[in-house]
Amino acid sequence: MKSESVKPAKSVDSIKETLMENYYMFESETIQLAHGNGGALTGHLIRTVFLKKFENQYLYELGDSAILPLDKSALELPNNAQIAFTTDSFVVNPIFFPGGDIGKLAVCGTLNDLAMIGAKPKFLSCGFIIEEGFEIKSLERIVESMQDASKEAEVLFVAGDTKVVEKGSAHKIFINTSGIGFFDNLNQPIKSTIEQGDEILINGTMGDHGIAVLSARDNFGLETTIESDCASLYPLVQALRQNGVEIKFLRDATRGGVATVLNEVAKKFNIGVLIYENLLPISSEVREVCEILGFDPLYIANEGKMIIIVKMGMGDKALEVLRKHPLGKNASKIGSIVDDHPQKVVLETFIKGKRLVDLLVSDQFPRIC
Amino acid sequence: MKSESVKPAKSVDSIKETLMENYYMFESETIQLAHGNGGALTGHLIRTVFLKKFENQYLYELGDSAILPLDKSALELPNNAQIAFTTDSFVVNPIFFPGGDIGKLAVCGTLNDLAMIGAKPKFLSCGFIIEEGFEIKSLERIVESMQDASKEAEVLFVAGDTKVVEKGSAHKIFINTSGIGFFDNLNQPIKSTIEQGDEILINGTMGDHGIAVLSARDNFGLETTIESDCASLYPLVQALRQNGVEIKFLRDATRGGVATVLNEVAKKFNIGVLIYENLLPISSEVREVCEILGFDPLYIANEGKMIIIVKMGMGDKALEVLRKHPLGKNASKIGSIVDDHPQKVVLETFIKGKRLVDLLVSDQFPRIC
Repeated sequence: MKSESVKPAKSVDSIKETLMENYYMFESETIQLAHGNGGALTGHLIRTVFLKKFENQYLYELGDSAILPLDKSALELPNNAQIAFTTDSFVVNPIFFPGGDIGKLAVCGTLNDLAMIGAKPKFLSCGFIIEEGFEIKSLERIVESMQDASKEAEVLFVAGDTKVVEKGSAHKIFINTSGIGFFDNLNQPIKSTIEQGDEILINGTMGDHGIAVLSARDNFGLETTIESDCASLYPLVQALRQNGVEIKFLRDATRGGVATVLNEVAKKFNIGVLIYENLLPISSEVREVCEILGFDPLYIANEGKMIIIVKMGMGDKALEVLRKHPLGKNASKIGSIVDDHPQKVVLETFIKGKRLVDLLVSDQFPRIC
Repeated sequence: MKSESVKPAKSVDSIKETLMENYYMFESETIQLAHGNGGALTGHLIRTVFLKKFENQYLYELGDSAILPLDKSALELPNNAQIAFTTDSFVVNPIFFPGGDIGKLAVCGTLNDLAMIGAKPKFLSCGFIIEEGFEIKSLERIVESMQDASKEAEVLFVAGDTKVVEKGSAHKIFINTSGIGFFDNLNQPIKSTIEQGDEILINGTMGDHGIAVLSARDNFGLETTIESDCASLYPLVQALRQNGVEIKFLRDATRGGVATVLNEVAKKFNIGVLIYENLLPISSEVREVCEILGFDPLYIANEGKMIIIVKMGMGDKALEVLRKHPLGKNASKIGSIVDDHPQKVVLETFIKGKRLVDLLVSDQFPRIC
């Protein structure tokens, strides 16, 4: 603490200057470093951008943490003493793309991580890292898209944080979302006990997200009408369960695509995976782009597709339920669990040849999700 | 899916090339984009860097989300149906500084957010955003420091995510941590009902973190022995409660410092805050640096200091408990809640003058926490 005696009195000019500077900052159309300093400008940003969209009773308190109620129905279960917890950061480039943006992605991605283990998504946090100079209009658009996606999924943003970094220290905006999910009578943890004969399904076409993002890049010169499949998959999981389908394994096929998920399954459960090229749903446009660029759609990221493994004999029932739902209208049974080739994923090609589908080491193209 | 017929056979040379490239990537001393693609290299990084340090039964499953048990003792409470949830991103520059690093900060910061609302910190998630080319040795050092801090605080990392962005798209490494805390008989939500006469304490000297980070910057030419105060404050809160101190409000004085916290209190509860310059604990070295640079320590970030407001008459008892603990040995009663000047924070100076301590708008120096 400096003592009063050494503190220079402020001149009227310097006070005017500060006031003008402050006025300028509050009216700024771009993010300033001071938006992240925890002071008046941070409060202004929280009130005018975040709370305006996300407002709810838990967030409203604006304490250091949110205090959240657990579901009564969950607490009455024999296994009541469990919750689901996950985190994911989103660094997609470009931040706006056909079918979505980084905000929608940040909501759906984390909700899907909760849904994939069998939980019902309930609460979300968001952590923004924003580059100085980022347009507040773009931030508002992203926040609106987050609010739309969370509202549709009936989840609440209950905790948040904003950091601003100097220009050049981040690419526009990065978003972390963490999520909490609950279990109840319908939504129980998925046990993941896979055995020979189990059937493998996907809820629709592969590769749409990856190709949509890629073609939205200025430098790619690719013109397509492909849209990201970005979606919250919990409603599909709920539909399967409500219709009595016994789900043995679920995983959304994001980074690394379907091939990566199936390889994880084969290795984790020490079984073989056999899929059929003629059963893989791929839109003709994605197929075309992949042929031109030499990509394999099996490795391309999705944001609204999951691999579903069900008990032998349950595949047709699952397919019927999936196809009735907008998010599963192009669902397909793509293969099954086999005793042959444990730890390996094998593709039977159109011409009945067999090809090993290995784990991706280097990327097909720059990271996009 | 390309059909087998159009797929060119790989030449022996191209296979060799791929193998060498993969070998190089697995042996790489720096982070590659492929470390973030969800494939084999991501798995390698998770196993060799993250799991090596963070391994525990919940993380071991490596599913999309962690499934976490709630505390039995918490479930037996009348208000059992509550948990605490918070998130924070860390972008400190430099990432290593006297007294800590970005990893320790990312653990303590989030644990403190949970402790400040009265919860017992329990589970953490971490989301890494890493710049391509970042040294794996530095990452290991950060992860080790995160593990040390979480072990000391008896919390577990149960969920994680890693993204790698192109060189120049992030400054080295950003870390988000989200945390879950529980309530039990001792650890109840803090009610925050503040009234005239309540006493205001801080658990030690102000400004150490901010000045330590600032002096660690290459371009500052400042040589000091000041270390960051980065610490998990839950043990202090626990000690206060175990000794029967009625805590009315807690807040760690991070970004924006003590002045920002006190302003929030004054505005939120529509009361006046009066603090005394001669009671503010500031180390002589921090005081000196601040005088040289023209900073006010009241606005400088701390990472191991909190403002504690206790019931009138409880201040001395609280001080006694705090001073017995290593994290509170320089604790001080710095002021009280008054009926005068509602919504304002006033400082009585050394020479008995009065000065308004306002909210910070623009920064004193570049963002450091």
